[in-house]
Amino acid sequence: MRQEIAEQGAAVAATLAEARRRADALRSAMQGRRRILLVARGSSDNAAVYGRYLVETRLGITAALAAPSVATHYRARLDLRDTLVVSLSQSGRTEEIVEVQRWAAALGAATVAISNDADSPLAVESDVPLTTQAGEERAVPATKSYTSQLTALASLAEALDEGGALTPLLDRVPGEVARLESGEDGVAGAVDVLAEAAGAGDLLVTGRGLVFGTALETALKLEETCGRPVRGLSYADLRHGPIAVVREGLVAVVVAAEDGPLLDPLADLVADLRSRGARVLTIGGDDRLAAASSYHVPGPALPEPVAPIGLIVPAQLIVESLARTLGLDPDAPTGLSKVTATDPT
Amino acid sequence: MRQEIAEQGAAVAATLAEARRRADALRSAMQGRRRILLVARGSSDNAAVYGRYLVETRLGITAALAAPSVATHYRARLDLRDTLVVSLSQSGRTEEIVEVQRWAAALGAATVAISNDADSPLAVESDVPLTTQAGEERAVPATKSYTSQLTALASLAEALDEGGALTPLLDRVPGEVARLESGEDGVAGAVDVLAEAAGAGDLLVTGRGLVFGTALETALKLEETCGRPVRGLSYADLRHGPIAVVREGLVAVVVAAEDGPLLDPLADLVADLRSRGARVLTIGGDDRLAAASSYHVPGPALPEPVAPIGLIVPAQLIVESLARTLGLDPDAPTGLSKVTATDPT
Repeated sequence: MRQEIAEQGAAVAATLAEARRRADALRSAMQGRRRILLVARGSSDNAAVYGRYLVETRLGITAALAAPSVATHYRARLDLRDTLVVSLSQSGRTEEIVEVQRWAAALGAATVAISNDADSPLAVESDVPLTTQAGEERAVPATKSYTSQLTALASLAEALDEGGALTPLLDRVPGEVARLESGEDGVAGAVDVLAEAAGAGDLLVTGRGLVFGTALETALKLEETCGRPVRGLSYADLRHGPIAVVREGLVAVVVAAEDGPLLDPLADLVADLRSRGARVLTIGGDDRLAAASSYHVPGPALPEPVAPIGLIVPAQLIVESLARTLGLDPDAPTGLSKVTATDPT
Repeated sequence: MRQEIAEQGAAVAATLAEARRRADALRSAMQGRRRILLVARGSSDNAAVYGRYLVETRLGITAALAAPSVATHYRARLDLRDTLVVSLSQSGRTEEIVEVQRWAAALGAATVAISNDADSPLAVESDVPLTTQAGEERAVPATKSYTSQLTALASLAEALDEGGALTPLLDRVPGEVARLESGEDGVAGAVDVLAEAAGAGDLLVTGRGLVFGTALETALKLEETCGRPVRGLSYADLRHGPIAVVREGLVAVVVAAEDGPLLDPLADLVADLRSRGARVLTIGGDDRLAAASSYHVPGPALPEPVAPIGLIVPAQLIVESLARTLGLDPDAPTGLSKVTATDPT
């Protein structure tokens, strides 16, 4: 896992180059269509959450995450002739996702498959295979395949964005990911903050908007790698009830971009969490957020629309180191396998 | 809370009658539109999850849950002229939801407001106010307002369903809710199963498809009322990773309808959870699911499309009784208030 974290700058650069070669095909697939439906599970689903916010906020195109059982179990007859379906699966072999893509195509959708294997059923059966260039991923927890998926989604948005405003932002991403992947800035201290809470399971991760998917992915990584339940909650859902359960001893991880309209509300949240007795570890954000935190790990120097591609990297470094501190094997967590089946066959 | 649980049969019956009087207005609002976007937070959001599955599986109309910050913070310019926006807020005064409804109307959406107050801003500003008839709800945890919201959503689907197949199913709901609200069948035993796990926070709730929202609402109720973090997970997300963290001592609550295409996979899940050392409390389901469980509480005798309206009732009874067993006040949980603000003003 540690080695694959360090391969992400290269994986992201190669994926960006490959996806840009597919820009015309992506534009053709979207031609005459009005909405985007994302299909995924697990880490890929967290990537899809980023894709949803990016498409809606940057392109003004409505986007949603599919509920797979609507296809696989209820076999609903939706009219998808106005829809581009984007399916994400690292292996391209998760049966449920392949089945949903087939269902969508039969109902009139154009299909884009983001997988790490151009020969996988998901890629081969799609209208536009968008193959991430992560290389073989050996560790069970997704790292470079996840950042490559985010890159592919940002490239899709770039291709569909007539103004071209995403291009200079995306150009900065590979270098920034490469800088972060070898950084140890604040990681050891963050592991100290988390180690006790992770053992007790009193840990939650939050974020909002474009970085909400990063919060979910950080929570999933902590949970998978450390073998403890960890909740990922949106800022708003946390405010709307569950904040009442925040208490002394809880550690809240808050992920944030360095700019954007959600930075101020997040700083207020951090203050609120601390006033309730929680310790708050922030990853990313600006100086004000850092000052408000119990402990702070710097994030990427990237604007919010592409920040998630870099922001997960310090989180990965923390999780990998935390697992080893807890005496666990970060590469092969107990009970998990690489290609997952939602339903046992 | 106990008293309001017992008022649900009447609240559901009155809401159904009121919503049916709005059927023509609902059909007119949907005229020429192709999709439904649901807007909500908290318990109302859990109701919206049911609405999404019901609309997609029964009507073949695509549906999605809005990401409110796309409206309130990013101010995205989506084209919503093909969209019916359905907003849910018990008070009709949750500022964020009112703001999203205004944003949607300005972008061309038709709007339906499901609130419990016909004079609220949400209702007054909507094209079609669909007012639930729950009466004043005094306890902080939503009970009769939640089942009334589910009823309003099912009535909306009934109005838009040309075949009329939902009508005989909905006719059975008020009586079944009334039967369940006074039932104590299995409640005391379920409280015994949960009491220890709730104290330790080692508790999750799962379900899938049409009853997934019931799982989320059961988790939220447990969390709010008992002051402990409780996770609601979809069956599929649980299978796709986090099941590896299931261990001895965990109590998993599984909610299920008595029929439907997800019953068999849920029975497999129950067996899997138990083989990993978890205790499984099922609410609802059929005889096979009951037999597979560590402990079973009967659910409603209602087919899956309307089952969620009854299925939450035994869960509410369990939560209310559990709170008192733990020495807590179910009516006024620490730190929660009735009208919630996502952002402090």
